[in-house]
Amino acid sequence: MTDRRSPKFKPTKAFKEFKDDCQQLLTERGQANSVAIAQAALKRYAKLSPQAKAGFFDYLATHMDPDPGDVLRLAEQYAVNRSPETLLNLTRAAEPPRQELLRRLNRTQGGAGQLVTMRADLLAHMKNDRRLSAVDADFEHLFNSWFNPGFLQMQKIDWGSSAQLLEQIIAHEAVHEIDGWSDLRRRLEPDRRCFAFFHPTLPNEPLIFVEIALLVEIPDAIAPLISRQTKIAEPNRARVAAFYSISNCQPGLRGVSLGNFLIKRVAQALKAEFPKLNSFCTLSPIPGFASWLSAAQKLASKQEARPVFSSTSTKTAALEALNELLQRENLDEPALQSLCAFYLLHSAENPGHELLVADPVARFHLNNGARLDRINPNADMSRKGLKQSHGFMVNYVYDLDLVEENHEKFVRGEVTASRTVRSMI
Amino acid sequence: MTDRRSPKFKPTKAFKEFKDDCQQLLTERGQANSVAIAQAALKRYAKLSPQAKAGFFDYLATHMDPDPGDVLRLAEQYAVNRSPETLLNLTRAAEPPRQELLRRLNRTQGGAGQLVTMRADLLAHMKNDRRLSAVDADFEHLFNSWFNPGFLQMQKIDWGSSAQLLEQIIAHEAVHEIDGWSDLRRRLEPDRRCFAFFHPTLPNEPLIFVEIALLVEIPDAIAPLISRQTKIAEPNRARVAAFYSISNCQPGLRGVSLGNFLIKRVAQALKAEFPKLNSFCTLSPIPGFASWLSAAQKLASKQEARPVFSSTSTKTAALEALNELLQRENLDEPALQSLCAFYLLHSAENPGHELLVADPVARFHLNNGARLDRINPNADMSRKGLKQSHGFMVNYVYDLDLVEENHEKFVRGEVTASRTVRSMI
Amino acid sequence: MTDRRSPKFKPTKAFKEFKDDCQQLLTERGQANSVAIAQAALKRYAKLSPQAKAGFFDYLATHMDPDPGDVLRLAEQYAVNRSPETLLNLTRAAEPPRQELLRRLNRTQGGAGQLVTMRADLLAHMKNDRRLSAVDADFEHLFNSWFNPGFLQMQKIDWGSSAQLLEQIIAHEAVHEIDGWSDLRRRLEPDRRCFAFFHPTLPNEPLIFVEIALLVEIPDAIAPLISRQTKIAEPNRARVAAFYSISNCQPGLRGVSLGNFLIKRVAQALKAEFPKLNSFCTLSPIPGFASWLSAAQKLASKQEARPVFSSTSTKTAALEALNELLQRENLDEPALQSLCAFYLLHSAENPGHELLVADPVARFHLNNGARLDRINPNADMSRKGLKQSHGFMVNYVYDLDLVEENHEKFVRGEVTASRTVRSMI
Amino acid sequence: MTDRRSPKFKPTKAFKEFKDDCQQLLTERGQANSVAIAQAALKRYAKLSPQAKAGFFDYLATHMDPDPGDVLRLAEQYAVNRSPETLLNLTRAAEPPRQELLRRLNRTQGGAGQLVTMRADLLAHMKNDRRLSAVDADFEHLFNSWFNPGFLQMQKIDWGSSAQLLEQIIAHEAVHEIDGWSDLRRRLEPDRRCFAFFHPTLPNEPLIFVEIALLVEIPDAIAPLISRQTKIAEPNRARVAAFYSISNCQPGLRGVSLGNFLIKRVAQALKAEFPKLNSFCTLSPIPGFASWLSAAQKLASKQEARPVFSSTSTKTAALEALNELLQRENLDEPALQSLCAFYLLHSAENPGHELLVADPVARFHLNNGARLDRINPNADMSRKGLKQSHGFMVNYVYDLDLVEENHEKFVRGEVTASRTVRSMI
Repeated sequence: MTDRRSPKFKPTKAFKEFKDDCQQLLTERGQANSVAIAQAALKRYAKLSPQAKAGFFDYLATHMDPDPGDVLRLAEQYAVNRSPETLLNLTRAAEPPRQELLRRLNRTQGGAGQLVTMRADLLAHMKNDRRLSAVDADFEHLFNSWFNPGFLQMQKIDWGSSAQLLEQIIAHEAVHEIDGWSDLRRRLEPDRRCFAFFHPTLPNEPLIFVEIALLVEIPDAIAPLISRQTKIAEPNRARVAAFYSISNCQPGLRGVSLGNFLIKRVAQALKAEFPKLNSFCTLSPIPGFASWLSAAQKLASKQEARPVFSSTSTKTAALEALNELLQRENLDEPALQSLCAFYLLHSAENPGHELLVADPVARFHLNNGARLDRINPNADMSRKGLKQSHGFMVNYVYDLDLVEENHEKFVRGEVTASRTVRSMI
Repeated sequence: MTDRRSPKFKPTKAFKEFKDDCQQLLTERGQANSVAIAQAALKRYAKLSPQAKAGFFDYLATHMDPDPGDVLRLAEQYAVNRSPETLLNLTRAAEPPRQELLRRLNRTQGGAGQLVTMRADLLAHMKNDRRLSAVDADFEHLFNSWFNPGFLQMQKIDWGSSAQLLEQIIAHEAVHEIDGWSDLRRRLEPDRRCFAFFHPTLPNEPLIFVEIALLVEIPDAIAPLISRQTKIAEPNRARVAAFYSISNCQPGLRGVSLGNFLIKRVAQALKAEFPKLNSFCTLSPIPGFASWLSAAQKLASKQEARPVFSSTSTKTAALEALNELLQRENLDEPALQSLCAFYLLHSAENPGHELLVADPVARFHLNNGARLDRINPNADMSRKGLKQSHGFMVNYVYDLDLVEENHEKFVRGEVTASRTVRSMI
Repeated sequence: MTDRRSPKFKPTKAFKEFKDDCQQLLTERGQANSVAIAQAALKRYAKLSPQAKAGFFDYLATHMDPDPGDVLRLAEQYAVNRSPETLLNLTRAAEPPRQELLRRLNRTQGGAGQLVTMRADLLAHMKNDRRLSAVDADFEHLFNSWFNPGFLQMQKIDWGSSAQLLEQIIAHEAVHEIDGWSDLRRRLEPDRRCFAFFHPTLPNEPLIFVEIALLVEIPDAIAPLISRQTKIAEPNRARVAAFYSISNCQPGLRGVSLGNFLIKRVAQALKAEFPKLNSFCTLSPIPGFASWLSAAQKLASKQEARPVFSSTSTKTAALEALNELLQRENLDEPALQSLCAFYLLHSAENPGHELLVADPVARFHLNNGARLDRINPNADMSRKGLKQSHGFMVNYVYDLDLVEENHEKFVRGEVTASRTVRSMI
Repeated sequence: MTDRRSPKFKPTKAFKEFKDDCQQLLTERGQANSVAIAQAALKRYAKLSPQAKAGFFDYLATHMDPDPGDVLRLAEQYAVNRSPETLLNLTRAAEPPRQELLRRLNRTQGGAGQLVTMRADLLAHMKNDRRLSAVDADFEHLFNSWFNPGFLQMQKIDWGSSAQLLEQIIAHEAVHEIDGWSDLRRRLEPDRRCFAFFHPTLPNEPLIFVEIALLVEIPDAIAPLISRQTKIAEPNRARVAAFYSISNCQPGLRGVSLGNFLIKRVAQALKAEFPKLNSFCTLSPIPGFASWLSAAQKLASKQEARPVFSSTSTKTAALEALNELLQRENLDEPALQSLCAFYLLHSAENPGHELLVADPVARFHLNNGARLDRINPNADMSRKGLKQSHGFMVNYVYDLDLVEENHEKFVRGEVTASRTVRSMI
């Protein structure tokens, strides 16, 4: 196999030293001192130039793959003689050696955090080089093992948390921006909650956090939940826990399942604190709705006879009505709501269709086993809300007894939704 | 492949429920609720009978291997077309599915601890069933990743530690028995230290601990180090940190490298606290010496012309002298010391020879990169010490600048030893 | 006033330096640096010989009294012209200057603990010198302010507490000796509880602790409560919290009310943890019974006509019967029980009578507002129990709604007791 | 003595209930349950109207004084027969009974904090009623004992502190206002420090805090110390710790010495962390300078022959020059500096003189034993700084070996100052 490394990068001294550390880590000699070598290597990595980092990822992709000949030979042996030994030999040979490298780099204290940063670098480079996807898969595989929910610690975040931590909450809130400390404070009052997952080796770095409003009813608009002016309510009167924002803090943990586990652990904790809670729902954005609709309208204007929407699970009359809506100049609220319901209900269906690039938020909650419960017009009247979803927001409901079943249906292509939502089409 | 499960075990209801949980964990449906399922499954496991546990391990061995046909096919594809996709497919297929099962069981809080217990059960069953060794290899592989030193927390253990923790120290001390709380207390005074590794998910369970005496000189006998009567010394006067005991607490973590990492992290911590320390050594038992010697003597009495000992790295004259010693009725101290030196120096050499079942303690420290420094007669005059090693003990010295090099030599079959020890042969 | 210091003590250098520190602390010059001076002074004090300490206490008694002339003059001014100024002048002059000295010694960190030790020394010397009682009153006055229950922290003590702390529990248990760590452990199982008061400046020094058994019924014997063999019960089934031991750890805190506050705070904490608890009682020794009875018998043997017992609150017939009992050679259990009831019921009455040196434990609980509920024969069959109270023990019941009223009655000379106990006479 | 209570206040029900609680606390009956009664009483107090609170303070002043007749009688007895008993009787009688009331209110957890709030209320009422000064003296006396530095815990405050705590730092900073969280953050970077005193019963309430800049040289202007733009320096290079702000958080602790103790404990802690620090100084405002100068100028314009300034410790020529300056229309910087030096140097002298209302900040530091080291022109060019001191600020230097001596001199009327400052006059 030829070296596919980009011809532009001339290995620098720093790059070579780092690569030497990595190679030594994998030798016998390095074993006795691997913690110290890993520590030195990660220090060096942090100082590399972007080019040198790219060079390193390239090296991982081109020199740390399993050897095809070895694997094939051992696979044949295993097929002929199925024994613990032949299996072990095969398993070891089929695992890319870079996995062992990552495990050894992880031996130093704080190594996990530095590897998360390394992967964020990798993801940035991967945009331009799809050969790196196998390297990335190894990172993701190991991170799913190291950042599994059994190792993560859920912590309540409130006004008694450190400024250093709260600062990160402000910085990473990705759904409804936090405008400074007083804005944050309202979100941490007794009728609001915030929980985050932490890894034991990164005690001051939240991995993901969720914000909750304790309410009397399922909410139909975001403004009252996040406004500083909203009066603080007595949390013991709440019957509904509404998850109104969930944000990842670590780009390097992409693909590691955190949100699903956090939501469920938080629901349990809240239920234990407030036994009278009877509903766990979200108030969620529909980030893909407006662009989907506009694409559908464009398509409708181009097509002549053929209808834009098709679906095996929707009645013909309803489908016709929907297709007809795409011809109108101005869509009123009921029309938009119907289209939105269609958009969300078909999230799971027919992913090959050009219009069915499903809503990521819908996919997330439906895949977690939630039910699509209500579509709320005029729910997010912020500039961003109007732009991305014409002001609509959705409630997904988590019924912990049904999440397994709902998830299974979703994987099969069926969205669990309330009768009201179904009837909107 | 036929079911090789022992015919005696009739699957009970509890067994089936547990197996169902495990199967569900691996299905899509189980994904959305995997933490809850894992928790339930581990609860069920804990209540299984030994027979049912054996049945489960058998199931892991027989039904959760990779499929030989699939692997072979994908190995061929990868050999023909080396791409990220073919590699990913191969890697996934070659990993035994039970690894994913263990990772999912680990998703629940405290899962890691329960899996360690599960493996201790497995090890007990493995004695009679070597087919389980591939299953065990999967446990060991994952545990090396989860209990890697980057995740472990080192804690000082002293008289301010909880009784619950100290009780475990008393229970698990495997080298020099602790005879009750007053005995323990002496080992925690300011001139003695004790450090343990903890996993963040098992905060009250030490995984391994080491006991250290802070001394003025390298010690030549164990009694003064552990006697309750020994006067407490001023730790700031110490120049030597002597590791006199290291004990594993978790049988389920066999094969997971902990001791090497602990010794080196402790050495760093002590050096930081007492910059005047200039030597890190052990005072170690030689558990295999007496039985090795007695086997050699037996062999010598049977053989006629052929000498018992042979070695390429020892001078002929010395070898002859050693062989001659085996003929004597009573061995005096210098004779025993010579034989002991030969025993230890050849730990690394020629492992196939029937007499070279090397000393496990020697292998441990030499493999860590320590130097065999001194052999001390009359060093452990306890019943156990006399029986296992005629009262001899050894000092291994850890020179952190040389551990890499020494380890490499040891792996090549060469023991690093002081001139004094070498000259004893 | 002449110097009453004992002529035997020749002030040593160390004594003079310490006295100088004390004097400087009270001067203006010392003010700016009082923390440092106090620290130095307390260090010096700790090293003084017993004679020098006695000399210091003597100095406190003889040179640090208020000036009688000043006080008289200011009392006259205050009587004539009652104003804030005349009052302040009087109050300051009437307070012994040694109080200010103690307050300034207390300024250094850890000063409070050292002053408690100092008072323990004082109490030892006071036995021979009643002039020191005014000095002691000043210590007690300040300690009641500094060790008031609002400042004390109640902590649960269990097997998760540090060995250092548990060791002190073993050492200070004054009622039912703890025979080593296994004995202690049984007393910390889930159906037993132990709570202690700590002062924030003495975080590792329990001031007082109480041991409780969680039971189904009010206990009538001590052995099952403290035996290592007693099966561990499910605490949630308990209906009774029985305080079976309360021990002070700091002799220097004599006269500072701790036990009363601890019992009530513990009762509240247990009620919160176990809402089904409906009775808070003790199982208490009667340390003074046997010696009281023997004194009464001796008196009876000397007296001819005049009866030993007299009481206005006991019916004549009952009194005659009791007096008659004193003539018998052998007292059976009912007879002893009657006498014991009489002994306890008259604890509060007629304190001047030679036989009514009341039982200290009875006085403690009755003064706290508890009710004398039951007298149990064969309740403490240990050597100590038989010797001090012929094996009898008592249950005092704390009904938190009635403690105020009961205490008030007790102060007036009336013991609150159950009908059963009353009927025993 | 007649009841001097203000005729306007009609005792309300709430007031009477509270007063009853207080009276009960002091009775025998209340003793057994004093913690519960105190808790109830303090709850009631918190809800009283300002009028009712005033009524209560009046009650404390008029009904809880010592009885003049009793005190006089016991003072006579003590004068005639000086014994522990006569002394104890006298001391008890001379102490105002309200002190015991406060001590008993303090028995409940958190009582101290509520009493501090009560005293803040009292101080507000005292402005109009000087009879309350004796009541206030009792509060102050007890608070000095309860909030003595031996009980206080010093904590470092930094960006890892809770938002709740940092919010209070922002709110209570009294010297150089903190303009929001980013402003605060700069003051908590590694080259700045903040320390506060806490009472163990008020863990989240700072009592007083001090802000420090770690610098290479003694600072001569405030702006660089508090500007967000100032580059963060390496603290290990610092040679000077400059205390640039000290703020009390609890008005109810007026008269309780905290600042002096805090500065010295902080100096010790910094010296331990940075052994190379060789100077502990302040950069302090001169809040009284401008108004003093203006008063002096006004006086000068009225007086004809007689000079405004007189001093025995200043040379005649210098005094004449100073008096002459008061006649000028516009004062240049050197002139202002001379006058400022005179103002500060005479802080201790001749307190009766109408112009010698000394600067409170100067009195604080000089009384703590600091030395007046340097007067800096153009040091605080903020509106406030120009208005109160024409932009001047002062460095006071704390030399821990000299504070005692300097304090003593200051009490005698002599200010310790550097030669440079002396020469300015």
